[in-house]
Amino acid sequence: MHKNFKGIEKTVFGHGSFNQLDEILAERRGDNAKFMLFVVDQYFKDKPLAKRIPAKPEDSVVFVDVDVHEPTTEQIDNLRDSILKTKGLPAGVVGIGGGSVMDIAKAVSLMFTNEGSSTLYQGLNLIKKPGIYHCGVPTISGTGAEVSMTAVLTGPVKKLGLKCEWTVFNQVVLDPELIATVPRNWWFYTGMDTYIHCVESENGQYNNAYSHAYAEQAMKLCRDIYLGEQSGQNAENDEKLMVASLMGGLSLTYSEVGVCHALSYGLSKILGTRHCYANCLAFNHLGDFYPEGVAEFKEMIRKHKIDLPQGLAKEWTDEQITAMATVSYNLPHMWNHAIGSDWKDKITVKSIEELFRRL
Amino acid sequence: MHKNFKGIEKTVFGHGSFNQLDEILAERRGDNAKFMLFVVDQYFKDKPLAKRIPAKPEDSVVFVDVDVHEPTTEQIDNLRDSILKTKGLPAGVVGIGGGSVMDIAKAVSLMFTNEGSSTLYQGLNLIKKPGIYHCGVPTISGTGAEVSMTAVLTGPVKKLGLKCEWTVFNQVVLDPELIATVPRNWWFYTGMDTYIHCVESENGQYNNAYSHAYAEQAMKLCRDIYLGEQSGQNAENDEKLMVASLMGGLSLTYSEVGVCHALSYGLSKILGTRHCYANCLAFNHLGDFYPEGVAEFKEMIRKHKIDLPQGLAKEWTDEQITAMATVSYNLPHMWNHAIGSDWKDKITVKSIEELFRRL
Repeated sequence: MHKNFKGIEKTVFGHGSFNQLDEILAERRGDNAKFMLFVVDQYFKDKPLAKRIPAKPEDSVVFVDVDVHEPTTEQIDNLRDSILKTKGLPAGVVGIGGGSVMDIAKAVSLMFTNEGSSTLYQGLNLIKKPGIYHCGVPTISGTGAEVSMTAVLTGPVKKLGLKCEWTVFNQVVLDPELIATVPRNWWFYTGMDTYIHCVESENGQYNNAYSHAYAEQAMKLCRDIYLGEQSGQNAENDEKLMVASLMGGLSLTYSEVGVCHALSYGLSKILGTRHCYANCLAFNHLGDFYPEGVAEFKEMIRKHKIDLPQGLAKEWTDEQITAMATVSYNLPHMWNHAIGSDWKDKITVKSIEELFRRL
Repeated sequence: MHKNFKGIEKTVFGHGSFNQLDEILAERRGDNAKFMLFVVDQYFKDKPLAKRIPAKPEDSVVFVDVDVHEPTTEQIDNLRDSILKTKGLPAGVVGIGGGSVMDIAKAVSLMFTNEGSSTLYQGLNLIKKPGIYHCGVPTISGTGAEVSMTAVLTGPVKKLGLKCEWTVFNQVVLDPELIATVPRNWWFYTGMDTYIHCVESENGQYNNAYSHAYAEQAMKLCRDIYLGEQSGQNAENDEKLMVASLMGGLSLTYSEVGVCHALSYGLSKILGTRHCYANCLAFNHLGDFYPEGVAEFKEMIRKHKIDLPQGLAKEWTDEQITAMATVSYNLPHMWNHAIGSDWKDKITVKSIEELFRRL
């Protein structure tokens, strides 16, 4: 049984394509209570981009601080409830920001039409009804959230996505100019998310010709961006990174992530570590699972003089480490892909604890 | 102004995925007059695949002979009229075959809901209403028809597609097993369509980071399939060719085709030459436009001892050559991409006639 993958409905790519957003939204403004909800990374509140958002007087523009924590089920429920109470059902949701904002836009679009708390829907195909129209405008590239079938949320019990075909965006606007000013460390950590997606997608039992072709090309683009002669943040590499993020996301969607994401979810759930940064912290120590990928990753770290702390585990209590390992262990689809169907013979909460102690 | 590209809604890829078609269609069988229309290449009429088509008693299975001519506007109108008259509006159309069958399925799905002759809608965004649900199951790979926004039809006046976002399939089923028995020459000609798509997409003013990434990977796959150590028709290459066709199609959708397709359309319109074969006949003589691509193409021809006749122009009348050149000249979007905005200063019907005389 092969996955039947839902793709993004419409994609526009290119320098200045953000200017087409107004026209794109115009077609949908007649739906529901006839206003758009813009969810925007607070980082842009006093930046020029905020003034370019094509919001009409009737629209809601909500700036969210994604630095305090990753998207939570409570945050989604509250946003949905407050909008419904004050203005009714929007015509659509537009997310402008990084992976967290993409996930918020996707999740809230679903929760506008599915009753109760979003904690009820964390998992595969638990959502009952299609959400409202939703459009993603990434301002940092690498997570693949712009193309994925999931909206990852941290709830009281789990860090797990609302994963179904209706999660996928109706529209994405990929304007490489929007990622030009990303701070250097985050440009690196987030870009590495796509690199790690590819390494994990390739190394496991669900890899196939489709996921491989996407991973191979996304990795080639990452090598140009992070190791090539013209490596670094420049206009050409910003274009490449946007495409790499999309392709890496498509690769993992048709395959699966692995050991690094399992650890990273544990870190994020227990310590609140940001996803892409948590991936980098873990991947750095997974050379025995992904020897070539980790070696190349370390070369990229060196080349860009990226700050990646080590010796973190010394500061963690045994309870914290057990809690992180338990979160990781409870992601069977990742271990099943990376290790094989007999992964429970090879991986235990104890052995995962040892992986965390490397960090 | 960048293109806002409509993607395939759902994609399933993998060996044996054809067996999932029944389950996939089950969700849509309740629509309209509750029957499915299967449009199937006549080649399969007495082949095992015909028995595996998940048709119910109420469904219509229409076998079409795509060898006599490329899809015509008249053929689409007649198919639509006869089905509507006898059974009403289908729940969906499923095309099982090569590029011609893909185009028939896409075109008829649109014509079920748009009144009058399909000749009225040849061009960009002339279709008024979305078509009915349509699903594509390619049995030969390379044309990219499974992913493209167009359904190319030959009418009394033009060879031109019904091109709009509703043309794109709601579902494609990519089962590499279905292309395993393609006759060798057609495996080559059709595969070369995707190679030529990439060469043309890359060499022109509309090429960009998105179309380039897809073209680069599709060309790499073509090199593996047609030049690599394991080149030829085998299970691994069948998978690669299916992915290459998709990626080549995505590349040209976000860029544009060029000189070879302009000539090929002339050949098909005036002489009825099949699209992929016509492309190969023309591309072979376009070394001054695409030096690297044509050199590599010739290497592939040699390696697989493919029969590609030359000296054809000797048999053509001046009137035929002028007619072909006139069809080609009237594809300004292709010349504009390949030659530049000032293409009319460089290309005339006369100069295109000279290109045809090379064949």
